[in-house]
Amino acid sequence: MTDNFLEDLLNQMTLEEKAAQLTQVVGSFMKGSSTSGEITGPMEEMGITEAMIENAGSVLGTTGAAEIKEIQRQHLDKNRLGIPLLFMADVIHGYRTIFPIPLAIGSSWDLKLAEESAAIAAIEAAVSGLQVTFAPMVDIVRDPRWGRVMESTGEDAYLNGEFAKAQVKGYQGKDLKNDLTRVAATVKHFAAYGVPEGGREYNTVNMSERELRETYLPAYKAAIDAGSELVMTSFNTIDGIPATGNKELMRDLLRGEWKFDGVVISDWNAVRELIFHGVAEDDREAAFKAINASVDIEMMSSAYVNHLQALVEEGVIDVELINESVLRVLKLKEKLGLFENPYRGADEQLEKEVILSDSHRQTARELATKSCVLLKNGSALPLKKEQKIALIGPFAGNKDILGSWSALGSKEDAITLSDGMRMQLDGENLLIAEGCAIENGTELELHHALEIANQADVIVLALGESSDMSGEGGSRSNIKLPQIQLDLVEKIAALNKPTVAVIFNGRPLDLHGVVDKVDAVLEAWFPGTEGGAAIADLLFGVANPSGKLSMSFPYSVGQVPVYYNQFNTGRPQVAPDVRERYVSQYLDIPNEPLFPFGFGLSYTTFSYSEMKLSHDVMTLDEPLKISVSVKNTGDVAGDEVVQLYIRDISGEIVRPLKELKGFEKVSLKPGEEKEISFTLTEEQLRYHHKDLTFTSDNGEFIAFIGTNSSDVQSVPFRLEK
Amino acid sequence: MTDNFLEDLLNQMTLEEKAAQLTQVVGSFMKGSSTSGEITGPMEEMGITEAMIENAGSVLGTTGAAEIKEIQRQHLDKNRLGIPLLFMADVIHGYRTIFPIPLAIGSSWDLKLAEESAAIAAIEAAVSGLQVTFAPMVDIVRDPRWGRVMESTGEDAYLNGEFAKAQVKGYQGKDLKNDLTRVAATVKHFAAYGVPEGGREYNTVNMSERELRETYLPAYKAAIDAGSELVMTSFNTIDGIPATGNKELMRDLLRGEWKFDGVVISDWNAVRELIFHGVAEDDREAAFKAINASVDIEMMSSAYVNHLQALVEEGVIDVELINESVLRVLKLKEKLGLFENPYRGADEQLEKEVILSDSHRQTARELATKSCVLLKNGSALPLKKEQKIALIGPFAGNKDILGSWSALGSKEDAITLSDGMRMQLDGENLLIAEGCAIENGTELELHHALEIANQADVIVLALGESSDMSGEGGSRSNIKLPQIQLDLVEKIAALNKPTVAVIFNGRPLDLHGVVDKVDAVLEAWFPGTEGGAAIADLLFGVANPSGKLSMSFPYSVGQVPVYYNQFNTGRPQVAPDVRERYVSQYLDIPNEPLFPFGFGLSYTTFSYSEMKLSHDVMTLDEPLKISVSVKNTGDVAGDEVVQLYIRDISGEIVRPLKELKGFEKVSLKPGEEKEISFTLTEEQLRYHHKDLTFTSDNGEFIAFIGTNSSDVQSVPFRLEK
Repeated sequence: MTDNFLEDLLNQMTLEEKAAQLTQVVGSFMKGSSTSGEITGPMEEMGITEAMIENAGSVLGTTGAAEIKEIQRQHLDKNRLGIPLLFMADVIHGYRTIFPIPLAIGSSWDLKLAEESAAIAAIEAAVSGLQVTFAPMVDIVRDPRWGRVMESTGEDAYLNGEFAKAQVKGYQGKDLKNDLTRVAATVKHFAAYGVPEGGREYNTVNMSERELRETYLPAYKAAIDAGSELVMTSFNTIDGIPATGNKELMRDLLRGEWKFDGVVISDWNAVRELIFHGVAEDDREAAFKAINASVDIEMMSSAYVNHLQALVEEGVIDVELINESVLRVLKLKEKLGLFENPYRGADEQLEKEVILSDSHRQTARELATKSCVLLKNGSALPLKKEQKIALIGPFAGNKDILGSWSALGSKEDAITLSDGMRMQLDGENLLIAEGCAIENGTELELHHALEIANQADVIVLALGESSDMSGEGGSRSNIKLPQIQLDLVEKIAALNKPTVAVIFNGRPLDLHGVVDKVDAVLEAWFPGTEGGAAIADLLFGVANPSGKLSMSFPYSVGQVPVYYNQFNTGRPQVAPDVRERYVSQYLDIPNEPLFPFGFGLSYTTFSYSEMKLSHDVMTLDEPLKISVSVKNTGDVAGDEVVQLYIRDISGEIVRPLKELKGFEKVSLKPGEEKEISFTLTEEQLRYHHKDLTFTSDNGEFIAFIGTNSSDVQSVPFRLEK
Repeated sequence: MTDNFLEDLLNQMTLEEKAAQLTQVVGSFMKGSSTSGEITGPMEEMGITEAMIENAGSVLGTTGAAEIKEIQRQHLDKNRLGIPLLFMADVIHGYRTIFPIPLAIGSSWDLKLAEESAAIAAIEAAVSGLQVTFAPMVDIVRDPRWGRVMESTGEDAYLNGEFAKAQVKGYQGKDLKNDLTRVAATVKHFAAYGVPEGGREYNTVNMSERELRETYLPAYKAAIDAGSELVMTSFNTIDGIPATGNKELMRDLLRGEWKFDGVVISDWNAVRELIFHGVAEDDREAAFKAINASVDIEMMSSAYVNHLQALVEEGVIDVELINESVLRVLKLKEKLGLFENPYRGADEQLEKEVILSDSHRQTARELATKSCVLLKNGSALPLKKEQKIALIGPFAGNKDILGSWSALGSKEDAITLSDGMRMQLDGENLLIAEGCAIENGTELELHHALEIANQADVIVLALGESSDMSGEGGSRSNIKLPQIQLDLVEKIAALNKPTVAVIFNGRPLDLHGVVDKVDAVLEAWFPGTEGGAAIADLLFGVANPSGKLSMSFPYSVGQVPVYYNQFNTGRPQVAPDVRERYVSQYLDIPNEPLFPFGFGLSYTTFSYSEMKLSHDVMTLDEPLKISVSVKNTGDVAGDEVVQLYIRDISGEIVRPLKELKGFEKVSLKPGEEKEISFTLTEEQLRYHHKDLTFTSDNGEFIAFIGTNSSDVQSVPFRLEK
């Protein structure tokens, strides 16, 4: 099928049909939907007519091979030109087989498994009739108050970019048209949704264009370079202009400078929200600003369908703006093969075979073990099977471990921590009590918990936030565990028995009141369907923790935002413990986070040789080779994430204290040693200057290698171009 | 004396002399100083020689007529060309008569008293030999973690601009040369020092240039338009470039665009700190960047004196850069009349007469009564003299009420709260106990406090932070009162007696644990020398509270930053109590601060008539007249701050929910009514657009009038240009 076909099709379309093609509605608006299919209150409110629905271009949020096929069939019956619908949905960290939340996946530093998880999500979604997912989200996140940090892979531009590429590859594969197990990816949220002021959902974002380009845009760019077919706009303003109506951001930068010719889709109702933001007086102006910014698809508001035609007819916009958007939508349909096969991968039989298959669950379990981060370990971990274990806490048997944005998953599928531990353990050795619920509890519950704790050799505390305490709309001002759980920790700790805390949550927490009270802490995040099995593998040493935080854990909420790649300031502390008055610090807490970016422990130990640089001076022709030997000096096999950072000592613009430039996750048997080598080129030393050029500065640099962003060795070098 | 004289003088100066003229050192480096006058360790470290000292241009931090005269005399003896020294110091909220901290002055909304306080500070400083003060600070402040918020008048650009003008007028008067009771003002810190990331002192600042111009620059501009002779650079980076080496900010914007031809002085060591920031490899490059940015005086580092000459001789910089800076310094000396009278206002006799005079103390007392903010009042206030009163808390008799940056004040002069209350009250009716110290306490102290509380009819709790818990270098992650004081409040509140809390502090605090426990709360800030007398006036109803917060009090530190002129977002809450998931909010706290900008209570009540607009439509020729009648409906006289806000409903750029555009502080006797009128012009509706033009947009607006930023009435209007 050629471009001519699409051009011909476009030429046959009326303006009404074009506007509707650019409109996305929920499945319940459609004929053939199991939930509705009639014009309902919400549709009337949106001013949507039956004719608009017949010409709608795409549908979100409906899934299932049978239903999607029926909607598509009835749609094609009515649609004058036979243009198939596109079916999209939020498949974020798995479809039915739920993987750990993206922030946990970020902590795996395992790009291969991230890609596999996306591929599994894609096949489960594809056989269910979906063609597009609204993932990956690559927003750089620095404020744990914001609930949606759980949906990002973390605070670092480079790491997020690597994960973005892996996920796009996993979702889309190499041939969307012929590989029916894949779906198109949508990188989001363009741009800089991840730094809402005060950590408050949907709040204002402000930064310089240079900072936007330097820190926030590269991860989106990485996803686009990896071929992401769609881009979703963000809800926030950027320097006072909402992304969805931001011509400079979308048409000039994304389309013009980056040459992105895929589909730009608004977030839910975001075109109409230009009115609430205060940059459009009404739907008509909202439609104008969005199409002028080159937003192709309007999701769940009706400014386009009600106003684009008039805007063209009255000469306010050129019809070409609409044509190019419609053509992009048609091209995406063509790329997905929908004109030949409007049902694409939808297959009721495959749904039964593929979804939640043993192998999918196995990958979910493996990724969950790689995502958990061991934050502290005295000697309590790993547990010994002969110990009598008391499993206590609101997450002991809680199935709410999938995390937010797992709508197509089912808690019923989840393996709880108690399930997982029972898989490893003789039932008699495992005593279980909740102790309290997530946010409240009774004396009786506490009493029962203390009773079983008293009988045990070791105590495992399963603590955390419920999944709806993070995710979209889940901002919190308090990032400690609920007080009732901190009280439980205190009571249990007072027993002076070996105690392990396993934390389930969607954001970095202030873990004071836990870390200082117990012997070992395992950050389990929301680990997904196989969560309990994976955690049990780690607790019993069947697997060895290897996750490293991809987002700093603040000392307290009063330290937010805290991130590893900060500036030195003009008055840095001499050392964390040297307290002078006139330096950059807080009087009452350290500058350092509770746990830094890249941090995570193992059951084994690793020793690093002295790092070596191939030269003292880097030139354009001669990149640096940086190498180090890493040895497993403990008794068990383990994985280590070897991290390469640099610092540019002096530039036109202040450069961060450290910038991640490479990493390698290496598996080492006890006693095994491997040499890890990184190549560092001049290109990796470039940054955005005052005039927005992306170049490097001659002069002094430092290369660091370490086990986390704080614990590093360093060697200086010079760049001479 | 003519410009020719200064040009001639410049032409006689060697490069060494010029570089030294641009260097500022502390008084202890100088001959004639009572503290030193020899080359000491710190001077050696700075690479400063005796010749450099002999040619130094200015001195900071030394005061006293006798000492300054002696230093000047010895300097003129040695200085080849007989160029007198300039003497500068931090006279921030008073010299020896200490006024409330600037954040408190901001809460007075009393421009006349602000001007008077600056004039009094000026005369006390001038007779002591000082010629320049490092005030006013007009940095917009939105983060109460930052300790230096105490030195700003608040969070609003317009209000800070008004106070900036008043203070510059107060310091400088109309004729610096002939009015020897005045000193030159230094507006600081240019620019945007007030929003360090995380509220951590000296930390990174990032925002768009548009936001910088829109929100942060206007207050500096107001001070410069009012004639501020000097500008001080800020410590922070702005978009990655430290202000002190920021050519775009200083030479291009301040000098070029704003035509500021006064003296730019670095902050302490800020030129050298370009190295620590990471934009200069060494002192030489630091000197280059600072002089290139048009920083005239280098304070307390020695990059200029050690490197400017070589930079010129090697052709790196044009000597004209140095000449223009030297000429600006000489011009300032000439403006101050120093060439005719190098001792200017220094006068030992006047020092004795003027400093801390009764009339100065009286103004300090008046300004302190106007600065306190009544945050809550059930029926406990005003106190009755016949009541038995227990005054309890670490600030009961504490002289640490001057606040930070009052180095030339003396705690010994301070009237404590107990002093002030004794001035009003028969001693037998006043029982006093500390209860605890500021950050710790004993059971015995608590016991004693409860004992006297039990004997009292009413309890006054004097609580707060010590002055070094705020101010420069005083950032805190926790903005609640110390726990020991919250415990004291709880114990006292349990007695169920009428209880009043008086809070001494330098930043907005999270007052949970106080406001909810007591009957009345008076925010007293650090009220200065006459603090206790002023507060007693208010407590006993001799004066009526009229202060209104010029900075929002957050609900908790997890809500920071919170400020009244925020954006609506695309998903505003329907109402504070309507809890939908997908709106801009926190799950666990309200969006609203604990106390909003502009908030403050009175012992009387005021009723507002319906506000009236002269027209529905504003045009270029026809400004709006907005009027309202305000009536004192209570039993005592009182002052009300009537506040005018606007909202631009839809613009090219999102406009804030409210913007302060005018205010009037009106005094009303019981039953008295006055009409308050504001004129609103098109110019006041302008803002910085995407392309940085400063224009207004036609369309819908709302005008609000109210008693604070939250409690308002509104009328819509349109702008049609």
